[in-house]
Order: sequence, then C-alpha cells, then structure tokens
Amino acid sequence: MSEPSAPKPFQRVSVLGAGAWGTALALNAARAGRDVVLWGRNQDNLNTISTQRQLPPYLPGLTFDHPLETTTDVTEAADADCILIVAPAQVTHHIAEAIGLYVRKGTPVILAAKGLEKGTQRMMSEVLADYLPQAQPAILSGPSFAFDVARGLPTAVTIAARTAPLAEQICATLSNKSFRPYASTDLIGVQLGGALKNVLAIACGIVMGKELGASAHAALMTRGFAEMQRLALKLGARPDTLMGLSGFGDVTLSCSSPQSRNFSFGYALGQGTDLSDLMAPGAKLSEGAYTARVACELAEKNGVDMPIAQAVADVLDRKDTIDKAVSKLMTRPLRRESDHH
Amino acid sequence: MSEPSAPKPFQRVSVLGAGAWGTALALNAARAGRDVVLWGRNQDNLNTISTQRQLPPYLPGLTFDHPLETTTDVTEAADADCILIVAPAQVTHHIAEAIGLYVRKGTPVILAAKGLEKGTQRMMSEVLADYLPQAQPAILSGPSFAFDVARGLPTAVTIAARTAPLAEQICATLSNKSFRPYASTDLIGVQLGGALKNVLAIACGIVMGKELGASAHAALMTRGFAEMQRLALKLGARPDTLMGLSGFGDVTLSCSSPQSRNFSFGYALGQGTDLSDLMAPGAKLSEGAYTARVACELAEKNGVDMPIAQAVADVLDRKDTIDKAVSKLMTRPLRRESDHH
Repeated sequence: MSEPSAPKPFQRVSVLGAGAWGTALALNAARAGRDVVLWGRNQDNLNTISTQRQLPPYLPGLTFDHPLETTTDVTEAADADCILIVAPAQVTHHIAEAIGLYVRKGTPVILAAKGLEKGTQRMMSEVLADYLPQAQPAILSGPSFAFDVARGLPTAVTIAARTAPLAEQICATLSNKSFRPYASTDLIGVQLGGALKNVLAIACGIVMGKELGASAHAALMTRGFAEMQRLALKLGARPDTLMGLSGFGDVTLSCSSPQSRNFSFGYALGQGTDLSDLMAPGAKLSEGAYTARVACELAEKNGVDMPIAQAVADVLDRKDTIDKAVSKLMTRPLRRESDHH
Repeated sequence: MSEPSAPKPFQRVSVLGAGAWGTALALNAARAGRDVVLWGRNQDNLNTISTQRQLPPYLPGLTFDHPLETTTDVTEAADADCILIVAPAQVTHHIAEAIGLYVRKGTPVILAAKGLEKGTQRMMSEVLADYLPQAQPAILSGPSFAFDVARGLPTAVTIAARTAPLAEQICATLSNKSFRPYASTDLIGVQLGGALKNVLAIACGIVMGKELGASAHAALMTRGFAEMQRLALKLGARPDTLMGLSGFGDVTLSCSSPQSRNFSFGYALGQGTDLSDLMAPGAKLSEGAYTARVACELAEKNGVDMPIAQAVADVLDRKDTIDKAVSKLMTRPLRRESDHH
C-alpha cells in the first residue's frame, strides 16, 4: 500500500497541564521530533521533569527517554504553532481563559479533557469557542493510558478538527513509531465518546466492585454503549465515530481496566467505600463523576433515555444507595433485544 | 412498565453435552422450573453430577443448588419438548446425527456452540438443517461464562429462532431470576457474533500475552470488531444484532478476560507457549482456533478484508511466527479512521 503524501507537522508544540497525561503527551511529541514546552503550575514537579526526567507522583518508576523543557509562564506556552490543553474538563476553561489573550489567531488548540462542564453543560469545544474564539479547535481522544503512552507502548487515538487537512496536520505533528493518531472531522462525536464513556466506566466499576461477575459486566456495557450512542447521535455525532477508537475503543478500555480512574472510582463505590472519601480533595479525579449529571441533563433536554447514566448520577447526588443503583443497573424490563436500541 | 403476556415455556428440556457449559445451562433450566435431563458420554462425570451435585473437573468448588437427572441414552435425551445441544462446534454434527432419528418433528433444538465448521464452512444452523431437518433451529449466544451461570450470577444472553414467538417461548423456558435471555429472530447474526469473536479473542490474547499494554489491546479490539461486522453483515446478519449482547457484549467479555478460553489460548501463544502444546489432546479447547481459517475462507469468498482473522489463521497454520503476526496486528496503514470501516 503506498503512503499518501505526508502533511506538514507543526514544529513548536506546547502542552498545558503537567499531570500524567500532559507529560505523556509532551514526551510523545518530543519523540515525534517536535520542539516541546510543557507548562504547569507546580514548580517542584516541573523541576523534577526537566532535571531528572521523571514525574514520580504521576508516572512512578519511569525515566523519560527524552528531555522536556518546562515553564510556568503562560505567555511562553501560548507562543507555539500548536497547543495542547491537557487539564480536567472542569478546569479546562481556566486554562483557556489564562492563555486567551496570548494565543495567535488560527493556532490549533487540541483539547484532551474527556468530560462535560458541570452547570454550563458545555462540551470542551464550546468552552474553547467561548474563551479562545481565535483558535482552531481540535480534540484528542481514544483508548490510551498515560503510563502506556509515557512508556512508549503502542497506542492509537483519534484527533478531530473541523477540516481533514488540519486534523491530518495535527496527526503528523504527534505521530511516532508507537503513537498513532487517526484523523477525523467529527469534533462532536470524538469528544462525546470520551466524555460519556467515563460515566459508563463508573457504572461498570460499581458492578464489578459488587462482584456480580464478568457476564453481568458485559451485559451492562452493551446497554451502556447503546445509551451513549443514543445521546451522541442526537447531539450530532456520526455513527462511524462511535464505532471507532474514540467510542467503542475507549469504552472497552475504560470500562474493564482498573488502570481507568473512572472504573476504579466505581469499583471502590461497589466495594463499599464512602463517596465522601472518593470525592475528597487530593483523591484521584474521576471525570465521569462530574459528567454523569450533565449527561442526564442533556439526555432529558433531548428526549433520550439513559437509565445507566441516571443510576450513576443518582448515586453521586446521594439520591440512591449503591444497592438500589445496582438493582437499577441490572434490571432490563425488555423482551426483545432490539427494544433497547 | 407493564409486562407483556408471558409466552408458554416448554416443560421437558434435555441438554446434550455435560461439560461446563452444558451442565450450567441444565442447572439453569432446572432453576427456571423445568424437568431437565442432561445427556453425556462420561458415566463417571454423570454419576458425580447426579449423586454429588458437582462436576469438579469443569466447575471446581461448586455444589449445585438443584439436582440434575442424567442419562447416556440418546433416545431418552431426544424425547423432550425442547433440546439444547451444547457441544463444541466441530463435534455438534455428531450429536445432531446421533439424535437425528429420534427427534420429533417441530421440536426446537437450541445450539450453543460458537464456531464455524472446518472443511464444510457450515454455520451451526446449517449443520442442524443437514442432520435434523425436522427440528426448529435456535441459537443461544451472548456474554456468559459457564462458571458464572452455574453459580447463579446475573447473566444476559440472546436466543434467536426463526420467529419471534418461538424465540420468546424458548426465552421463557430458560429464564430465571439470574439468567435473562432476550429474543431475536436473527439466527445468522447471533451465531456469527459468537463464532467470530472467538477469533478476535485469540488475537487480543496474543497482544496481551506479548505485554503490549491495554491501549494496544483496545485499538486491536476496535479494528477487530469492525472486521467481524463486515463479514457478518455480508453474510446476512442485521447490524443491530452485532451491537447487542451476542455481538458487542460477547466481544467485550471474551476479548478481555482470562476466563475466556480463546483469550487464554492467545495469551499463552503471546507468552511463548508452543502451539503443539496448546492443541494437544486434552488441552482446553479454543473454538476460535478452528474458526479462524473458516472465517478467512468465507471472507475471501465474499470479498471482505479481515486482516486480523488472517493473522490469527496464519499463526495457527504455522505460516507466520507470533512476532510477525503481532506486527501485522499492530500495523494500520491508514490515515483517516473511517477508512477501516
């Protein structure tokens, strides 16, 4: 098979957010041959990254195969050919706002958060449009664990932008031997897949934490994927996107693996851990815990039935006990299978 | 939601095949209140089942919550209102042939094997049509582990028959508090989902055995599910069926869990176990090891591209090393994601 002519990569890349995923993506861009600067707020962490090539709290036991330049200066981070914002969904707007004045018109800004904004119900691309209207929005999503990417294990993700040439240019910017991004123009589908699967991952974690077995888990995933699709299609996603890496692929990864924070969060709930402990400051973040209620609000607004997201949201809002939620998750008052599509 | 009027169950049920899955399904029918007889060839195992309510080699540590009547007499097994054949795909035709003379016209015969017949390329429903043309064919498939079902953990499966009323009657026959069958009329889709996912499970096992990480695994599953769908749709499956329990649900279960024989088989290959050891007499059966080549033959005949099934078949036919297969499994010469659909 002959390769199509390669799109031109962006050379100077900045990554805003020096947690596990931001650092992994920065490392990955360095491997792809880019000039990378990694922006963060925690000077200690940044020092460890730039001097020791490590980030022990987030990527334990790993020494990076490339050096990374770091900064705490937003103006330096904003001065790039291509910008990645790698922050939790609920704080992405702060970062977009912080660099808003400095980003040049037409700069592609790639969002890596997988969530919907509480209160405003905004998708990440809508957050960007509000705070960085001069940027070209893009989304990076798909089945990927920071630690795997940081170690250089094979990973494939989807990158969506408004036009195919731009998406392909961003793919070329970040692509290397072990990291394969695939281009899409379905901004809505790619980000909704990533956001909604986190809610389903919590539900799956709960059922596994309750030790209901792998068969129950598979049945729940099947129904959950169907309800995710119902909402996403209603909001303008393309069916193909949901069946690809950023939909199906990410669902299979996040809903089965203890490496997934959202799955682990649900698992802990299923095992009896108190919600307050899981939501305490300093606890590992579960994006799905914030997105669950927003998904239900959007579902209601759009006349879509999402019983699984509803059960998760009701647990998180303390409207339901875990046991009641489990019984809702496992109830299927249906006779023919296609009724639930 | 009000329940529709319940279809009438078949009362006398026989299950042919006293391995783990056959015994679990017999137990399950007993729980549903049916008169059950379990047929097998191994008198020792049958004695243990009927006198000790156990089957240690297949269901270790479990004592059944219901007694099971057993027999080695095919005429007794054939004398039932509803028959389940629970044997590996490659030997299902022997059992169908053995009871062929004794089964009454119109008796529903439910096939539980998940595979395609080597040499003849027959689906299980075609095997039935050849040996038991007087029977009404049905298929039971979906995400389920024998041990989970035997223990009474919640499980949902799909049962397909030619007509909805018959499928619903069989569902009513086997349904109980923990086991939920859903009716379908897509005989082809339900059996192809079960057969083809076993091939993909081997591929996923290989990649996990090679320790390529969860992200690589998720990417492979995504592509594999897409190629399964391509062939199944070409052979007449309905798209909805592939997205349900017997497609998506069973893929997620079998491709991720060491409880799956096909996944474990691939995993062992990935870890370096020799193929001869895995295919030795007495080794645990991997249905996918037989189905892989048949899937490739059907794909070629129907002009469908199935690179993952091909890579698995080539390993099993010793045409390729594991390392070459892995490199094929991980190569995606594509630029836009939708190209691979």
